[in-house]
Amino acid sequence: MDTPYLLIDIGVAVEQYRRISAAFPEVPVYYAVKANPEPLLVRELVAAGCHFDVASRNEVDLCLSAGADPSVLSFGNTIKKAEDIAYAYGKGVRTFAFDSLGEVQKLAEHAPGSTVICRVLASSKGARWPLSRKFGCAPEMAADLIRWAARNGLDPAGVCFHVGSQQLDPGRWEPSIAEAAALYSLLRAEGIALRLLNCGGGFPVDYLAAALSIETYASVIATAVDRHFPTHRPRLMIEPGRYIAAPCGVLHTEVVLVSRKSYADEPRWVYLDVGRFGGLAETEDEAILYRLTTPHDGARTAPVILAGPTCDSVDILYQHTTYELPMALRPGDLVRIHGTGAYTATYASVGFNGFPPLRTVVLPFTDRPAPGESP
Amino acid sequence: MDTPYLLIDIGVAVEQYRRISAAFPEVPVYYAVKANPEPLLVRELVAAGCHFDVASRNEVDLCLSAGADPSVLSFGNTIKKAEDIAYAYGKGVRTFAFDSLGEVQKLAEHAPGSTVICRVLASSKGARWPLSRKFGCAPEMAADLIRWAARNGLDPAGVCFHVGSQQLDPGRWEPSIAEAAALYSLLRAEGIALRLLNCGGGFPVDYLAAALSIETYASVIATAVDRHFPTHRPRLMIEPGRYIAAPCGVLHTEVVLVSRKSYADEPRWVYLDVGRFGGLAETEDEAILYRLTTPHDGARTAPVILAGPTCDSVDILYQHTTYELPMALRPGDLVRIHGTGAYTATYASVGFNGFPPLRTVVLPFTDRPAPGESP
Repeated sequence: MDTPYLLIDIGVAVEQYRRISAAFPEVPVYYAVKANPEPLLVRELVAAGCHFDVASRNEVDLCLSAGADPSVLSFGNTIKKAEDIAYAYGKGVRTFAFDSLGEVQKLAEHAPGSTVICRVLASSKGARWPLSRKFGCAPEMAADLIRWAARNGLDPAGVCFHVGSQQLDPGRWEPSIAEAAALYSLLRAEGIALRLLNCGGGFPVDYLAAALSIETYASVIATAVDRHFPTHRPRLMIEPGRYIAAPCGVLHTEVVLVSRKSYADEPRWVYLDVGRFGGLAETEDEAILYRLTTPHDGARTAPVILAGPTCDSVDILYQHTTYELPMALRPGDLVRIHGTGAYTATYASVGFNGFPPLRTVVLPFTDRPAPGESP
Repeated sequence: MDTPYLLIDIGVAVEQYRRISAAFPEVPVYYAVKANPEPLLVRELVAAGCHFDVASRNEVDLCLSAGADPSVLSFGNTIKKAEDIAYAYGKGVRTFAFDSLGEVQKLAEHAPGSTVICRVLASSKGARWPLSRKFGCAPEMAADLIRWAARNGLDPAGVCFHVGSQQLDPGRWEPSIAEAAALYSLLRAEGIALRLLNCGGGFPVDYLAAALSIETYASVIATAVDRHFPTHRPRLMIEPGRYIAAPCGVLHTEVVLVSRKSYADEPRWVYLDVGRFGGLAETEDEAILYRLTTPHDGARTAPVILAGPTCDSVDILYQHTTYELPMALRPGDLVRIHGTGAYTATYASVGFNGFPPLRTVVLPFTDRPAPGESP
């Protein structure tokens, strides 16, 4: 098959969903569809009982087309056009996030009576793909916005926060949980009973380095919730994207060129037929370090600089992180990039340098018995 | 019309082509198609006499479909699959770039007899979108590769270099011209007469700040070529992309949300319906600073942080560069982002967060008389 392409094994994603669901008992798992909106994947997650965190009108449509009930959708993007809010509401979506007066005003007008969740700022220290201050507001502002929502026909259920994607430190959730507890206590005294705490996503997967287990994260988070909510413990919800989707994908790429820049002692440059504009956007600043395999694994290796095929010089994957690849590597060799099921295919450019977007190829999935077949 | 969309005025691009052609008399201008591969734009540039620098098989097809003769195409990407070289050669392309033994070997096999140009490393100090060592090789390696090409049935015509895109310092071309002169002199003594010097692109356009005129760049480059090639002056070629395409585009976007993160004194956050994943990739590291206009221009302004609409926190356009926008700015207001004709639409992701790629809308172009109409 012509490279590059992303091979998806939906069974792996469903297994990840089951594992995180088991680690967080009684916590609804909202899959962050943006991680990988492959329709067949979403369909199987619907069948497995998953809920969905959607970022746009098109993601609402995608989930509904895949058979999801609108009641399991949460429109988690805090930056929505008024007409997109009205559209989702018209389709039956009743859970929305916000982090500003402008947004909660839109919700009161275009999604009256909906359950709304206020996003608060959180530190993403420790994350490989950290979040900025783009999303969320300070707690004192959150309190005012929740009061406003309660007075204006909305159902404020709680707050959400996000500690940053591929968060390697399970301790990063507790400061936000503690802040939420103080806010819930303050508002309860005013008669506003918040009942839900959305702990977001950020749960890490194994790339070049292994991450701690999801059970460790679940345990640390449960302990923190118990500690800060000795009474009036809220229900939790979580929004994993990467954790469910990343392990299910293997990007297949071909070596286009192996070269050196000079006769001085330098690493080889290895150019692949996929790069930052073709789906590997998360190699920006070498944030995500993927694991590679080649047909020559086991043979003698030496350091390389890895780059993509376009004429753009920022299209370099790794030059500061030391990657070693076999000396025997040649143009035409197949290289597999593992753990590429999340934040890859949808990041691909429509046609930069005339290269077509990354194709997704889905492996047949046989987890469920076919209709009429006995399990 | 629903935002976001990129409005293209092809007449402006053709005018830019004519101006740079006039500034560099007798120098063929190879438009770097990757800057904006809009077919109607390429068609008008063909009609105006432009040559084309192509990066991929699809760009070869695009130019030929737009009516270009294969003799005016240069396959400038130094990272090509063997089958793509063979494909271009089969379509009549006879000019190719390379910067390594691996690549020139592919050319000898799949494009025998072709005119080949060796890319040498150049410093891109002073460029807003600098180039790395990804492309080019050291001069002593270039000499060996050119010797190899001459011995193996290829027609080595000269070298090419690139000083980095949006290069603000016209003096950056001279060091590479001087290096080329030394190399041409060395090889001439061995009987290899190089006749062409490809000075690449990088010519800047006005964004938030004005750039020096193209005539200044042409004059500085001509003087440097005269100085370093007192005899055996090579023919020049240039490969502008941004210079031709950037001024012809205006990205139309809508304000989705204006908010603050806290009650403390902070700039407002202004969220647009286009961001880094929707076509403004060159705002990475705030490299390219676009000029914005709004319906409230002239009214009182204050600093803002500008961000895109996706749930990705790196989707921020400007937070370190001070941008001021009117206090009166509201959701639904149209914002125009000027100078966005290059490196925008093709960078857009296929569907990150479910947002569709950036549409291009082309203004009618009436430069040439219609068939049968008198000029």
